[in-house]
This record gives sequence, C-alpha cells and structure tokens, in this order.
Amino acid sequence: MAVYTDVSDLALENFLADYGLGKLLAYKGIAEGVENSNFLLHVTAGFFILTLYEKRVRPEDLPFFLALMEHLSAHGLVCPQPVKTKQGDLLGTLAGRPAAIVTFLEGVSTRTPSVAHCSALGAALGKLHRAGADFPRQRPNDLSISAWPRLFAQAEDRADSVEPGLAAFLAGELAALAALWPHNLPRGVIHADLFPDNVLFLGEKVSGLIDFYFACTDFLAYDLAVCLNAWCFEPDFSFNVTKGKAIIDSYQSCRRLSDTEAAALPVLARGAALRFTLTRLVDWLNVPPGALVRPKDPREYVKRLRFHQRATGPRDLGLAL
Amino acid sequence: MAVYTDVSDLALENFLADYGLGKLLAYKGIAEGVENSNFLLHVTAGFFILTLYEKRVRPEDLPFFLALMEHLSAHGLVCPQPVKTKQGDLLGTLAGRPAAIVTFLEGVSTRTPSVAHCSALGAALGKLHRAGADFPRQRPNDLSISAWPRLFAQAEDRADSVEPGLAAFLAGELAALAALWPHNLPRGVIHADLFPDNVLFLGEKVSGLIDFYFACTDFLAYDLAVCLNAWCFEPDFSFNVTKGKAIIDSYQSCRRLSDTEAAALPVLARGAALRFTLTRLVDWLNVPPGALVRPKDPREYVKRLRFHQRATGPRDLGLAL
Repeated sequence: MAVYTDVSDLALENFLADYGLGKLLAYKGIAEGVENSNFLLHVTAGFFILTLYEKRVRPEDLPFFLALMEHLSAHGLVCPQPVKTKQGDLLGTLAGRPAAIVTFLEGVSTRTPSVAHCSALGAALGKLHRAGADFPRQRPNDLSISAWPRLFAQAEDRADSVEPGLAAFLAGELAALAALWPHNLPRGVIHADLFPDNVLFLGEKVSGLIDFYFACTDFLAYDLAVCLNAWCFEPDFSFNVTKGKAIIDSYQSCRRLSDTEAAALPVLARGAALRFTLTRLVDWLNVPPGALVRPKDPREYVKRLRFHQRATGPRDLGLAL
Repeated sequence: MAVYTDVSDLALENFLADYGLGKLLAYKGIAEGVENSNFLLHVTAGFFILTLYEKRVRPEDLPFFLALMEHLSAHGLVCPQPVKTKQGDLLGTLAGRPAAIVTFLEGVSTRTPSVAHCSALGAALGKLHRAGADFPRQRPNDLSISAWPRLFAQAEDRADSVEPGLAAFLAGELAALAALWPHNLPRGVIHADLFPDNVLFLGEKVSGLIDFYFACTDFLAYDLAVCLNAWCFEPDFSFNVTKGKAIIDSYQSCRRLSDTEAAALPVLARGAALRFTLTRLVDWLNVPPGALVRPKDPREYVKRLRFHQRATGPRDLGLAL
C-alpha cells in the first residue's frame, strides 16, 4: 500500500488533456493496492481513480485487465469502469508508466466479515462468473499449479527460518497436489484474488468489486476456493463452516456447481492455500531495502494449508452434497 | 508520506457516529503529510479529510492547531476547517490516536512555482497574517533559534559524512546567527512551513493553505523568509530574485513590512535555511529501520544557507528598499 511514482501537477494536467473529464481540481496519492501507484482524482466530471502500473504488472497484460473491467461493467457488475480518452484508448502513459483512469466506487471493505457479508460475497462471485462467461480474451493463470515449483525453489533454502520444518512440509504438499489436482473442470474468467479488501460493501450489500490485476482464465471453482480461504477463517485460524456454507450456497444460487466441481473443492482450496503460502513466503524472504510495503505473514496461510490437509471432504467446507 | 495507522471499517463507523455527517460511503488512506496518517473520507455530507495524529505531534498542541484553523476559516482564509462532533468537540480518538475531521479543499500544489504562483503565495501569506492577528492563543516556535544548538548536537558527529566540512560550517552559522538574530520584530501566528506542497492552486490562484502542524507564534517576517527559501530557488539552487520580489511585493500589498523587518529579512532567511538544514540533517542521519518515509536531502538547504551567507542585503532577496 504505497505510492511508488511521483506525479507532478503539470504532467497530470497534460495527461488529462486527452480525456473529456474537464479541469483538474485535486489529486491525492492513495494507499491502495500493493502492486501499483494509485491517485484519487477530482476533476470537473467528478471523482475517479488514476492508476500507474508499476513493474510487477506486465504491460502486455493490461489490455486484458482493462477490457475485462469494461466487459463486466457493461454486463451489470459494479467494478471500476475504465474511462476512455477522446481517441477511445483505455491506456495512456504518465510519468513513464502505463496509466489508466477508472471510476471511483462507493463502499467500504470489511476487516471482520460476518455470515451476511459472506453470503453477499458468494452471490457477487457467482454474478462475476456469469458476467464473464462470454468475455472473449484469455490470460493463463501464471500463479497456478505449474508455477508453484518455481516459487518453492525461490524460498526452499530459507523456508525453515520462517517455521522449522516448513520446507519439507511444502515439498510434501507440492507432491500431493500434483497428484490430486483436477484437469477438466469448467473454466472461465476468474478474479483470483477476491480477498475482503477487494470487495466493497454498503452495510451488508456488495457495492463493488475491485483490483482485477490477478484476473485470468482458470477453473471457476478455484475462485470460490480462494474466497473460502480468504473469508471463512476466524482470527484463531479455525474454519467457520457457517461462513463457508453461506458463500457456497449463495454462489450456487447464481451458478450451480457440477458434481465434479463440488468433489474437487477441497483440493482446490488446499491448492489455493499453497499458492498464497508460496507467494507470501517469497515476498517475506525478499523484502527489498527501502521497501514501502510490509509483507504479509506466510504462516497465516500455512495454518490454512494444514486445515485443508486434514479435511475429509467438501462437507468440511460447508458444501451440503 | 504514508499511512501509519490502520483504521478498520467498524472503528471508523463508530467514530463517525459522534458527527452529523451521515453514513460512511468510502475511505482511502492518502499519502499526504509527513507526520500524520490521513484518510480521504466520503460520507453522505460530502468529502472530508480524517487525520490521525501520530507520535511526532504533541497532543497538547492539537487544540492550538485546530482552533487556529477554525479561526482562520472564520476570518475568510481558505484552509481546512475542523468539523465539530455533535457535542461540539474538534478532537476525538480513533485507533488509539487523537483524530480530527477537516473539510476537503480543491486545488493542486505546484512542483514548479512560476512568478505568478509566487505572487499569489505572497498575498496569501499576508492574508494569513492579517487573519491571525486577533487569534488569542500562543504556541512558542520550538524549532527557532533556541532549538538549533540541540538539533546540531544530534547531528554534529556525523555531519561530515553527509558533506565534508559540514559540522564546522554549521557551527560557524550557529555562532553568527546567535549574534545577528533580531529581538524586537512584530510577532504573531505564523504557518512556519508554507512550502509549495502546502499551498493549493486552481490555475494561478491560491485555492487553499494546508498543514498547519508547525504553526506557532513568532516573528511574522520569519514566515516570509521561510517562503523565500522554499519558493524562489531554481533547480540549480540559484536564487530567482524576480520570484523573491513577487512574493515580497504582494505580501506587502496585504501587510507592509516595517523598516526593521525589511532590514532583518536576510538574517531571517539565513536562519530559516539553517533551521531546515538542521531538521533535515537529523532526519537524514536517523532513518528508522522499516521507515515508510524517505527523508529529504539536507544538502538542498546547505546550498541555500551558503547563498544567504554571501548575500549583502535585502535587495538580494528582491526587496526594493
């Protein structure tokens, strides 16, 4: 959560001249999003978010992300809607970085999701999958199972400094998931990072979904598995099956899971927990000097992984077969 | 520029219940102000700034700052106006810190002040001094000449690591200024930190002054000296006398300098340059591990100090005696 790139008033006014948003009235760097620099933009036309894409986002992926947000908005999902330049472009250049302007959404993310929040989240995820069904572009999930051995290799030799025995535990999980991972589940556009900080609420209603910069094409049920991990564990790291049931039931009210998907959910949740363990572990072990962002603790996801390792079936996640 | 304190949605909703601002619609941490945590607040009543005061601000000084902003707003100066709780308080507590809500101002700070900007700034400073004339509270300037030996002592042994010979140079300046510093100039409320990032413009008109957390009671002409340092040096560290004249002339159109003040201006500018050299040097030499803020380079102010050391009189700053 930081602003990595300084934007001068003159550079910004110059950039805005390509848009039909009126005059610049104010802008403030905002502490949102781990990967990019974001500014709240106040112009004659209202409030917007300006994003400068920093080096962790590949420029060649940006047309996918922006076209997806445009597609989802056009299909009735509330998400940041990219604003086009007068020439019809979604992407420009500012301070030497690719940059885009999107609409500012109302809503507040919750730090303490209730069962009602989980229920609303499940329905929003189902609507996202329905709205994305006819999105024509594809982007492979570069943090899925084929990427895990490479991530593990970056962390293996120092993993035990985080928790004794962690390297052996993760090697075992990699091997187990390679054998268990499903192959032929329904695929489509997934958010892939729908944590509570990426879901805006007004009261208990979802008012918008944000941060589509991990979105990709993968198993739809994997997105549900990511949410079960991110929303249903209590502060003591116990899984709250009532919250799991709330997410799954309301998801299914929008999009019914097939029997194969339902049966695969525990393995997908275990894999999703391994994915976040590995990326957090690599970030944790590689904090650059002068970093503006404090990394998240990978052990929070090791605990989730141990839960999924012990789980006996979809019922443990709240799915009533 | 960072957000030091995390504020949860529930804590914020609870805090807002004391205000008559309606419902919380959105909030974002903003990268503004070096000393405190700031959030842009969107509530039913509009957009506001929420500030949590961090440890570098003394809680006992907060009533002075907030009362000053209220006083200046009431006297027609555009600055953040503190919002009162339903009980009439300007200050509350949030996430264990003193916290206040102020109005959100339109305007953009300039990185490249023009002569027109300098002229507008000078008038705004004059209006600030006039509006503050009958402000009843006092706060000593704890970064004025009596504080400099203590600051120097914190940096003396490592000053030469920043620039060879710097310790001896600063010791000489301390001694020279102790002999030259004036005693009986007109005093009043000063901003004391009116750098370009604290002045908002719409075009070439000042739309607001912000960040009053160094405001104190001191020589009014010292405030002008701080501005001459902050606004009139070009990127090559040459003093632009046209900009100096623009600030001084427009200041005088609002508040005429006495002959004593005019004669003291070069010494005040030299002292102001020493004050910012010393505070920047201490910060530069004491970056805490995990710091979220990169310190400003003290050498930018050493160069200003050398200019003032060589200056021959008020005319060098743009003052036509």
